[in-house]
Amino acid sequence: MLGLRRYVNQLGERENIDQVFLVADKQLRANRNGNLYLQLRLTDKTGSLTGMLWNATDGVFNSVETGNYLRVAGTTQSYNGQLQMIVTRIEPADSGKIDEQDFVTVSSEEIVRLGQRLTELLRGMKNPHLLSLAECFLVDEEFMGKLTEAPAGIKNHHAYRGGLLAHIVSLMEVCRVVAPLYAELDLDMLLMGAFLHDAGKIDELTYDREFGYSDAGQLIGHVVMVLSTVEDKVAESEQLSGTRFPPELFLRLKHLIVSHHGEYAYGSPKLPMTLEAIALHLLDNLDAKLYSVAQIMKEDASGESAWTSYNQSLGRKFFKGKPPGST
Amino acid sequence: MLGLRRYVNQLGERENIDQVFLVADKQLRANRNGNLYLQLRLTDKTGSLTGMLWNATDGVFNSVETGNYLRVAGTTQSYNGQLQMIVTRIEPADSGKIDEQDFVTVSSEEIVRLGQRLTELLRGMKNPHLLSLAECFLVDEEFMGKLTEAPAGIKNHHAYRGGLLAHIVSLMEVCRVVAPLYAELDLDMLLMGAFLHDAGKIDELTYDREFGYSDAGQLIGHVVMVLSTVEDKVAESEQLSGTRFPPELFLRLKHLIVSHHGEYAYGSPKLPMTLEAIALHLLDNLDAKLYSVAQIMKEDASGESAWTSYNQSLGRKFFKGKPPGST
Amino acid sequence: MLGLRRYVNQLGERENIDQVFLVADKQLRANRNGNLYLQLRLTDKTGSLTGMLWNATDGVFNSVETGNYLRVAGTTQSYNGQLQMIVTRIEPADSGKIDEQDFVTVSSEEIVRLGQRLTELLRGMKNPHLLSLAECFLVDEEFMGKLTEAPAGIKNHHAYRGGLLAHIVSLMEVCRVVAPLYAELDLDMLLMGAFLHDAGKIDELTYDREFGYSDAGQLIGHVVMVLSTVEDKVAESEQLSGTRFPPELFLRLKHLIVSHHGEYAYGSPKLPMTLEAIALHLLDNLDAKLYSVAQIMKEDASGESAWTSYNQSLGRKFFKGKPPGST
Amino acid sequence: MLGLRRYVNQLGERENIDQVFLVADKQLRANRNGNLYLQLRLTDKTGSLTGMLWNATDGVFNSVETGNYLRVAGTTQSYNGQLQMIVTRIEPADSGKIDEQDFVTVSSEEIVRLGQRLTELLRGMKNPHLLSLAECFLVDEEFMGKLTEAPAGIKNHHAYRGGLLAHIVSLMEVCRVVAPLYAELDLDMLLMGAFLHDAGKIDELTYDREFGYSDAGQLIGHVVMVLSTVEDKVAESEQLSGTRFPPELFLRLKHLIVSHHGEYAYGSPKLPMTLEAIALHLLDNLDAKLYSVAQIMKEDASGESAWTSYNQSLGRKFFKGKPPGST
Amino acid sequence: MLGLRRYVNQLGERENIDQVFLVADKQLRANRNGNLYLQLRLTDKTGSLTGMLWNATDGVFNSVETGNYLRVAGTTQSYNGQLQMIVTRIEPADSGKIDEQDFVTVSSEEIVRLGQRLTELLRGMKNPHLLSLAECFLVDEEFMGKLTEAPAGIKNHHAYRGGLLAHIVSLMEVCRVVAPLYAELDLDMLLMGAFLHDAGKIDELTYDREFGYSDAGQLIGHVVMVLSTVEDKVAESEQLSGTRFPPELFLRLKHLIVSHHGEYAYGSPKLPMTLEAIALHLLDNLDAKLYSVAQIMKEDASGESAWTSYNQSLGRKFFKGKPPGST
Amino acid sequence: MLGLRRYVNQLGERENIDQVFLVADKQLRANRNGNLYLQLRLTDKTGSLTGMLWNATDGVFNSVETGNYLRVAGTTQSYNGQLQMIVTRIEPADSGKIDEQDFVTVSSEEIVRLGQRLTELLRGMKNPHLLSLAECFLVDEEFMGKLTEAPAGIKNHHAYRGGLLAHIVSLMEVCRVVAPLYAELDLDMLLMGAFLHDAGKIDELTYDREFGYSDAGQLIGHVVMVLSTVEDKVAESEQLSGTRFPPELFLRLKHLIVSHHGEYAYGSPKLPMTLEAIALHLLDNLDAKLYSVAQIMKEDASGESAWTSYNQSLGRKFFKGKPPGST
Repeated sequence: MLGLRRYVNQLGERENIDQVFLVADKQLRANRNGNLYLQLRLTDKTGSLTGMLWNATDGVFNSVETGNYLRVAGTTQSYNGQLQMIVTRIEPADSGKIDEQDFVTVSSEEIVRLGQRLTELLRGMKNPHLLSLAECFLVDEEFMGKLTEAPAGIKNHHAYRGGLLAHIVSLMEVCRVVAPLYAELDLDMLLMGAFLHDAGKIDELTYDREFGYSDAGQLIGHVVMVLSTVEDKVAESEQLSGTRFPPELFLRLKHLIVSHHGEYAYGSPKLPMTLEAIALHLLDNLDAKLYSVAQIMKEDASGESAWTSYNQSLGRKFFKGKPPGST
Repeated sequence: MLGLRRYVNQLGERENIDQVFLVADKQLRANRNGNLYLQLRLTDKTGSLTGMLWNATDGVFNSVETGNYLRVAGTTQSYNGQLQMIVTRIEPADSGKIDEQDFVTVSSEEIVRLGQRLTELLRGMKNPHLLSLAECFLVDEEFMGKLTEAPAGIKNHHAYRGGLLAHIVSLMEVCRVVAPLYAELDLDMLLMGAFLHDAGKIDELTYDREFGYSDAGQLIGHVVMVLSTVEDKVAESEQLSGTRFPPELFLRLKHLIVSHHGEYAYGSPKLPMTLEAIALHLLDNLDAKLYSVAQIMKEDASGESAWTSYNQSLGRKFFKGKPPGST
Repeated sequence: MLGLRRYVNQLGERENIDQVFLVADKQLRANRNGNLYLQLRLTDKTGSLTGMLWNATDGVFNSVETGNYLRVAGTTQSYNGQLQMIVTRIEPADSGKIDEQDFVTVSSEEIVRLGQRLTELLRGMKNPHLLSLAECFLVDEEFMGKLTEAPAGIKNHHAYRGGLLAHIVSLMEVCRVVAPLYAELDLDMLLMGAFLHDAGKIDELTYDREFGYSDAGQLIGHVVMVLSTVEDKVAESEQLSGTRFPPELFLRLKHLIVSHHGEYAYGSPKLPMTLEAIALHLLDNLDAKLYSVAQIMKEDASGESAWTSYNQSLGRKFFKGKPPGST
Repeated sequence: MLGLRRYVNQLGERENIDQVFLVADKQLRANRNGNLYLQLRLTDKTGSLTGMLWNATDGVFNSVETGNYLRVAGTTQSYNGQLQMIVTRIEPADSGKIDEQDFVTVSSEEIVRLGQRLTELLRGMKNPHLLSLAECFLVDEEFMGKLTEAPAGIKNHHAYRGGLLAHIVSLMEVCRVVAPLYAELDLDMLLMGAFLHDAGKIDELTYDREFGYSDAGQLIGHVVMVLSTVEDKVAESEQLSGTRFPPELFLRLKHLIVSHHGEYAYGSPKLPMTLEAIALHLLDNLDAKLYSVAQIMKEDASGESAWTSYNQSLGRKFFKGKPPGST
Repeated sequence: MLGLRRYVNQLGERENIDQVFLVADKQLRANRNGNLYLQLRLTDKTGSLTGMLWNATDGVFNSVETGNYLRVAGTTQSYNGQLQMIVTRIEPADSGKIDEQDFVTVSSEEIVRLGQRLTELLRGMKNPHLLSLAECFLVDEEFMGKLTEAPAGIKNHHAYRGGLLAHIVSLMEVCRVVAPLYAELDLDMLLMGAFLHDAGKIDELTYDREFGYSDAGQLIGHVVMVLSTVEDKVAESEQLSGTRFPPELFLRLKHLIVSHHGEYAYGSPKLPMTLEAIALHLLDNLDAKLYSVAQIMKEDASGESAWTSYNQSLGRKFFKGKPPGST
Repeated sequence: MLGLRRYVNQLGERENIDQVFLVADKQLRANRNGNLYLQLRLTDKTGSLTGMLWNATDGVFNSVETGNYLRVAGTTQSYNGQLQMIVTRIEPADSGKIDEQDFVTVSSEEIVRLGQRLTELLRGMKNPHLLSLAECFLVDEEFMGKLTEAPAGIKNHHAYRGGLLAHIVSLMEVCRVVAPLYAELDLDMLLMGAFLHDAGKIDELTYDREFGYSDAGQLIGHVVMVLSTVEDKVAESEQLSGTRFPPELFLRLKHLIVSHHGEYAYGSPKLPMTLEAIALHLLDNLDAKLYSVAQIMKEDASGESAWTSYNQSLGRKFFKGKPPGST
């Protein structure tokens, strides 16, 4: 029987667990002796841990679906400084008993709210050309459907269903408050850039079942892929509005997308050369880093320590906790 | 006679000019034939250009003071793509006829306003320890006097009297609007970090007459120099408040300062390891870059072109102008 | 009167010259005293040298057109190790007396020959999809016209009218002989990649009068710009042939274009991930470097030395001459 | 009994195998419990996989020789994404039943053919000095014997007995077809450079039993080691021919060798400064990369995927397969 | 019963051992099956090896103390090229039977000797200001106590109790003999820099029980941390001596400390800008590298080979042994 | 008439000078107007300054020889922060009135002393093989003659006749005092490495008249060039001594030479892999840097400032002067 949920970030070593997790990844592997085992990444909204089910079979493997819920029983332990679970039993989750709020995926309500906020922010723009262009995207159900579904990444920031939308809206909110502080920054330009900068990820990534990269995603990349969509929408917008989309505005918009990685070393084919491009790159970086590091802190298993374990890709440990005296 | 001012960013080639400039730099140099000439950097609030006065003497050189106003007559021309002026006459500026608003230095009223805003932002903090510490800085007239006088740099961003204060307040305003968007960010910590991150520049730079680096500034640097001031103020604050300043809070504050350059390559002895340190580094970068690039665009002499000339230190040209359709 | 031509690479110091050059660049500049002079880059097929005409005027400046022929009289001299000419007179060139063969621009016959060779190489492909796609480009007169006119760069390799076509055909010839040596390499794929890899330069550069970058060229870049053209042509080809262009083939082709700069540091948004992409990157590099360095050797003014002067962008000197004993 | 061979690149998971492999590497290791096991790298001409024999002894270990054939029985499985085999029995291979063609080592016939082609290409040179020098190498049986035996590397490209010869001849073939396309390139110089650039590997590597590095190879390296051999041969050639080997030709040849790694970062003591050195570096890179990547694609175990697994040293995955429509 | 000691660098595979080791690290870990084991780093003065005790418990784990002696019985084996020991029994070491000389920690006599030598070298300085300042440090028992206890690092050079003192004295000895060879170098400045450059490690590291980093150590770092101590001591010295410590001397001293990592990439906030700072950086590097590499050679398990195994952090293997013919 | 010498480092602006200098470089250049002038680098033992003689001719140019003495009259001035001299008259120096001690070249006595010290240090070695090898070099008059004549560089450290010998002996002295402090370091190995590491410069550089690079120097480089000399001498030594030079010793010696630049980025084909190679690289760096920076400080024209002007190649300014209180 399932009792009160123990969230991942509450788990200590040697706890007996029997509750539902969202499966983020599954692999059937052989150990050195040739025996198969199932390795799962089990998540809820507070973090993730690895589960190991010994003596697995193809049947067991096929019965599990990434992106779905699974009831898992077993015991936690620490392995190489990471918390993991020795799984003793898995079974389908009773959907009636799942509280979607417990999981890291954004709830349907939240998705709806984010979608509404996106619409609101875009419709609040003053530039008639950008407004008309935004409308063409907003009424494209396929585009909006994918934008709502996609994660913002496979492993790094916002790597969950709905994560792309969450990142875009969060970045637009930052643009909205920062732009008024700099007279030279054009808010609408920034909002449109924030809306589209990562939109290529809807085709770069695959996420209807498992998260991964599409062939086009790997060979071309989201920075370049979104451009032809933008071209189509601009043509559509011109037709609908009966006005020419100013070529320079179009250039500036494409430049925002093409340069948003900010440095050649990160695969950016161009350096930011407009004020909005400079701002978009740094604020995108801010939004992604703050999310990632907060996540790293939350998921860190070295519970009692003030420090996370060493993060390879960022090249450092992080110091957890809140400043003393903060309210 | 001085007519209506022609601002630096309005000047074209081959204009005859007779008006007041603020002298940012002066040098007495010999040409290849051994004849002396005076080279001046003449500025107003819209930009700067180089002035050359042939056949100068030590006396002429000594009569000019950097950081002061000077009436300059001559003719503009373009030299290697930069606008310069062949100066034919210089004389002391008639102080009664100077409109301080025309020059890049912040006006006295603006300084007062910035100082008040700084006080307001600091006094609005909720963390009692940081509040008490801030008060110790605010009542230190020598410290506040220097903070009000200092530039934020010699050549780069905010390189004018009052520029340090302007940068600090601008950055604090950004922190103020961004922090509420991220639940994990502590606003007071960020505000205090923004207030102190560059405060070491009051002793790193020299600016009572000419802008330059002090010996300590070159050998130690502002990142490290400010720490002993902070230590003194923390001791003072503890004495005044009768409460211990939490050691972890002190560490977090010092870390914000020590890591704000963000990468080893920029002379940062530590990488940012708290959420506030990550945010401070990126927002500081944002504030400095937006100011610099906006300035580069304003000062660019290639007036009719949509592009600035190539900027060596940032490794690119910039695309000027506003997005078409913006309001 | 114009006698027998002295080619640029035959010129020594202190020669009196009166003959026709092709003007590659012109600038009206002021010297330190404010006097204007005209600075020209004078070229023929063997190299280029700088010409200085003192006491120039706007009228003189406007009378000269880059990309056109000009009769120039003056005296050569060495300045900072570079040969230059003090120009005493310029006048329009008598077009009847110009032997186009003397100049670095490819002759009309050569352009025709290169165009025919390009067609021949493309029509020799076996892959029906690529063949059909190539045909769509070949019949597009505007595209082919620009491809015939454009240089391959502003300063670096093949920086002359027709240079882009020359580089493309030269690279295709290399691909043609190298591919058969590696069983895994697909010749047609390589030929198509060589044909299109730099085709974006027809819109990245401006070259109807002076060589330069278009706004789109600077903000987006040729690597990305050509993709929408390719998309249009693929659609056209599908319509004409009535067959679907295989999506994977399309991806591979776009990948060849997107990755041809080979490394992130050179603004490549993707690293080469197919065998053809690896080969195209290295052979493109080979063709460009061999042309540039051969040109640097030809144009080098330090005539009697076995060494060219130091080349900043390649970070070295080059050793001129042929190996002893070669035939 | 051994049936029809299953090549390494045909193997899937959970296959029972009993056939001959070429042993590329062997190690006796202890697991965490202190039990010994034998780890083998088993290869044929299509790739390699790891074999694990549990409960091994020193005797078993000594009975296996790297570089020799071994009959191996066991079952395949996937371990961490790599195909491996749990070996249940090993025994000496029945030499009568080995088809040398099945293994990656070049066949004796192929070695002979490569040697003849090398001779042919060298004897086709026109430069009498290089021709005479080449002859001195060709008649040196010890040198030629080692050149025929050596691999071109331990792990990277052409890492098999005869691989050095195969790489050299392949590179010479490329030089032969590319040089005629560039008037300034000297074919003979290139051929001689291609012949000798990696010849130092005959002493840098050890390969009479196992592949490895000699002490000299590690401390000095092949780039430098071959130079004294070249010096000896030039002296010999001068004596035989009675003509002085032109000192400049000698310098150019040594420069080709010394600079062929092309960049300081790859341990090149000099950057390429002649046209031939530039071409040799890029074509060497081309030949090595195409071989390596084609090999990575062939050996990749993720059979059904279009992508190889991530390659650490090249920093990317590769996209397998042929372009659709190719013939 | 404990017989004659087998030093770590004498151990081969499959030896039965029962003797005392100094425990440098301990970890309680779970294997994949969830069973706990104890992993120890066992050291003596000749090197270290890993010991594994299967089926451990919390009680066993708590009974072991890092930094203390432990009697260990078990069998050696090689695992992934490293020598390790399968431990079968541990028990407290009989302190009466421990010969402190056998262990890598400096003996008490050695510590005393190093402390005396430090004092001697400092008291031998001629500069009265530095002499007085040194005295203030020497009489500070808490400071000297920590300086005597601390290691110079966690993993790298001199990572043992007393290692910091050993490194400082060793570096001062080098300074003492090198300075007289360069007329421009100030010996006292160098000695004082060598004394204080790493003194911040007494608070950066934790070492009363286990070696680690303090929070301040990670967030601020030893380069910066020591400065406030130096400031306090300078004030003390001024009070004691009644003379002002020359401000420039103070700056030079702080600069020596702040710049001793030598390059931005190593977290140095400043590059060395005085002759003494240049020398201190290079000689510090020399002392640390020679110690580390000698240690790597001593500890290397690949006994019979002339080469150590590949060292990740230094990016190479090392060639062991003494030059033939040396005495 | 020549009065008391004013040394280069004593010169201020606007001094009238008439005295002898050593000419380090001469160039005949044209100014923009085509008039020729002679540019000289005038040196004495304390530094160098540029001299400009207007309206020069080929005859004047040919009358001056670099590396020789010249009597020069003119007036000093500062140009772009560098002291230079407007030369009004040059004439041959009266050799009877030249005090060789005044010039940066090492005096004949000093050369003799350095040669004797070199001999002494080499003959003091204990290793019989190295001793015998050293003897073969010492008796080679051509080799020793060049070693005595050569500079250690063209522009950087020890760039004067005899500079190579001075650098070698200075480095050997450092090795002599440092080696005894590290038990693992072999002094003789280090001494021999210091003796030979830069010996290739005797053929890499040209210095019988003007300093420059030989073709071989540029194409091959001193690191590699010296190896064949060492090979010849080892053969000679074996013949003389009748003993085999231990191959490993030979390898270690070659490795010292090949790796002494220490990092790939500096053109080192190998990283240091023996203790002696690590020490030699760092001490060589120390000796070269201390010499260069001391020289930069001495030659700096910004006399009254505590700082040298910015040094491009070292990327910083330097802080001049001695520590206060030093004796």
